[in-house]
Amino acid sequence: MTRIEEARQGRLTDEVKLVASNEGLEPERLSALIAAGRAVITRNSRREDIRPLGIGAELSVKVNANLGTSRDAADIQTEIEKAKVSVEAGTDTVMDLSTGGNLAEIRKQVMQAAPVPIGTVPIYEAAARALEGHSSFCEMSPDDMFQVIEEHLAGGVDFITVHCGVNREALARMRSEGRLMDVVSRGGAMSIAWMRYNKKENPFFAEFDRLCELAHRYDATLSLGDGFRPGATADATDRAQIQELITLGELQARATDKGVQVIIEGPGHVPLDQVQSNVQLEKKLCHGAPFYVLGPLVTDVAPGYDHITGAIGGALAAWAGADFLCYVTPAEHLRLPDVQDVREGVIASKIAAVAADLARGRPDALAREQAMAKCRKSLDWDGMYKYAIDPKQAQTSRSKIPPMDSKVCSMCGEFCAIKVQKDS
Amino acid sequence: MTRIEEARQGRLTDEVKLVASNEGLEPERLSALIAAGRAVITRNSRREDIRPLGIGAELSVKVNANLGTSRDAADIQTEIEKAKVSVEAGTDTVMDLSTGGNLAEIRKQVMQAAPVPIGTVPIYEAAARALEGHSSFCEMSPDDMFQVIEEHLAGGVDFITVHCGVNREALARMRSEGRLMDVVSRGGAMSIAWMRYNKKENPFFAEFDRLCELAHRYDATLSLGDGFRPGATADATDRAQIQELITLGELQARATDKGVQVIIEGPGHVPLDQVQSNVQLEKKLCHGAPFYVLGPLVTDVAPGYDHITGAIGGALAAWAGADFLCYVTPAEHLRLPDVQDVREGVIASKIAAVAADLARGRPDALAREQAMAKCRKSLDWDGMYKYAIDPKQAQTSRSKIPPMDSKVCSMCGEFCAIKVQKDS
Repeated sequence: MTRIEEARQGRLTDEVKLVASNEGLEPERLSALIAAGRAVITRNSRREDIRPLGIGAELSVKVNANLGTSRDAADIQTEIEKAKVSVEAGTDTVMDLSTGGNLAEIRKQVMQAAPVPIGTVPIYEAAARALEGHSSFCEMSPDDMFQVIEEHLAGGVDFITVHCGVNREALARMRSEGRLMDVVSRGGAMSIAWMRYNKKENPFFAEFDRLCELAHRYDATLSLGDGFRPGATADATDRAQIQELITLGELQARATDKGVQVIIEGPGHVPLDQVQSNVQLEKKLCHGAPFYVLGPLVTDVAPGYDHITGAIGGALAAWAGADFLCYVTPAEHLRLPDVQDVREGVIASKIAAVAADLARGRPDALAREQAMAKCRKSLDWDGMYKYAIDPKQAQTSRSKIPPMDSKVCSMCGEFCAIKVQKDS
Repeated sequence: MTRIEEARQGRLTDEVKLVASNEGLEPERLSALIAAGRAVITRNSRREDIRPLGIGAELSVKVNANLGTSRDAADIQTEIEKAKVSVEAGTDTVMDLSTGGNLAEIRKQVMQAAPVPIGTVPIYEAAARALEGHSSFCEMSPDDMFQVIEEHLAGGVDFITVHCGVNREALARMRSEGRLMDVVSRGGAMSIAWMRYNKKENPFFAEFDRLCELAHRYDATLSLGDGFRPGATADATDRAQIQELITLGELQARATDKGVQVIIEGPGHVPLDQVQSNVQLEKKLCHGAPFYVLGPLVTDVAPGYDHITGAIGGALAAWAGADFLCYVTPAEHLRLPDVQDVREGVIASKIAAVAADLARGRPDALAREQAMAKCRKSLDWDGMYKYAIDPKQAQTSRSKIPPMDSKVCSMCGEFCAIKVQKDS
């Protein structure tokens, strides 16, 4: 039985109790959210060495870090380092999106390095394998594609991105309306190229039940990818994107009925004024399923700083109800991120998550803010570091221009407002 | 005559025409906004060497960079470098908040280095001077305080922060409700210490007309400071803050009547869910006067990264109607910022400003996004750099892990979604 099936039978497992306790929720309530498909617990049933993670309604906002090789940078040690650094910085999950080198080996080592739920996009490996034996990755068969999925799940992958909503209907709508950037999702572009080359419907859409059976076997989470996510703010909330979302909502209902956990992936590039509507649309069309957004980036013109652009959109999205923030690094749109980019990306997304938890009125977030304020009021620097998202960075930064009076900081010195009030 | 007086007489000056043209507005409309106190043009009438800057309703969002020495770091060359770097990075104004070293000399050199409107907080210099001859800065007289203001304005300062709303009424309300952090504004804390020491009302409140006369003489802008701005998210939108805002609204009406331009300073530390209300409150209580916010910071727990926290709050505030974003650097709460912090702070605030301009539907912002998207679609890297907020950073970052195929980037390599679509 899967978690959804157990929850529907009213069984409160130890796992549900543990996650509920971590989240400050009653286990009965979490169980009801899981039964309804509004929250998931992400952990492959074969994976015992990680803590289960709750994502969804009424839970704290979670953060994912993407890493992985490409043809241009395929050093496995670097990826292991990224995995470790991202967990140190506080990521809740890691996705291995490798496309270069020995993919199975990289995945295995990333899973060892990062004791958190791991996600993958199996079509990348299917395409990379097909490229080895064929002139085009489009020559991979549906069986090849499902084969890779089965290998990933059997190997313990906890959630997989599958671009099931990239179908002929959404593609036709994209073409009829037109777009500045067309498709920017790698998996989406691959699926469309495959559909065109083979003159067939996307196998992950056409054979969705087969996907569900695989996910059911390992109680893995299907992350329904948004192949038509807007790649430019000008393309946001258009026909193709919303058509795909309607389809994802239909598939989500089918999967949930079958006892398979689902989360929904979302944009992408979205102007500030459309972020809240995008969250509401997902929650309505996908029956409250957890929403996993990439950014969103609220402007296209800040390459080199997209972790900030993404933190702005992520904070607003999560406050509006998004549950899971995929980080964006400063390297986005420019190159493969390095270890430092990964670190900065995780921190930026954590800030967005914490800000949203506070705005949602979560008692744990409120308590942390109060604890920090009390330390600041008493000029208790060790206390401030303790409650900081990145204690080391705070401490290092302060010591860079040290104050004469060790109680204050070098910004205001003797005119420190807190000191002035204490002394007067 | 001041700008407000000219606008009320229907005179369209060259200055108004220039600013209107920069903003894509009809000069008649800008003139009407100035007459109503809903927009200002910031430039001291003695200062001919800078371009006038419009701030307020229907204008693009502007960014300010704070710099200045403290007792702990009083190197004038560093501050000149900060001034230059902040302008290069795109700040619209610079505030010199120096409290250490030869303040008049620093101010003069900062004004030469940064050909943009310059703001100051004259009470800092008044307090620093008083400390030279007395045991407490509280021994400065009201005349000493006004004397510094006159010197700053005669020297060409374009806008000054005056904490006129820090009065007995707001102080009593802060005490009656209680606060975690009390006052975190330096000028606010100084004003309160002065009031207590001298058992008198704040001179900038008690003698507000005298302030207006000085500002009128130089057609300078009064930036009404928020001495009671919340210094912790837990203190946001409380009695003291809103009481002060009511007073600032009363003073704003008096100043505008007298033909003196006013902007209103705002918080500070504000949870995401209160940002929009704070903007609306300012716009209602202060008759649509331009709103100049510090951040706001949407969480207290990210010291070392407050430029990101501030960009989240700033984007949301500016989208909701705030007009002018005071940057926050990564050094905030920890130490005096260095040159790199200043740069990062300006860029983060520019991102927030651009995102808000886009969300407000400004045609220039929409056009820039579209131009960037077209360059990305055609893999035109030089074009992308051109439309980037920081072209140099984008270019440097991309070259750090170069792709084999120079058309794509090292993130996706041969699986670049744009390339896959082109090829298929």
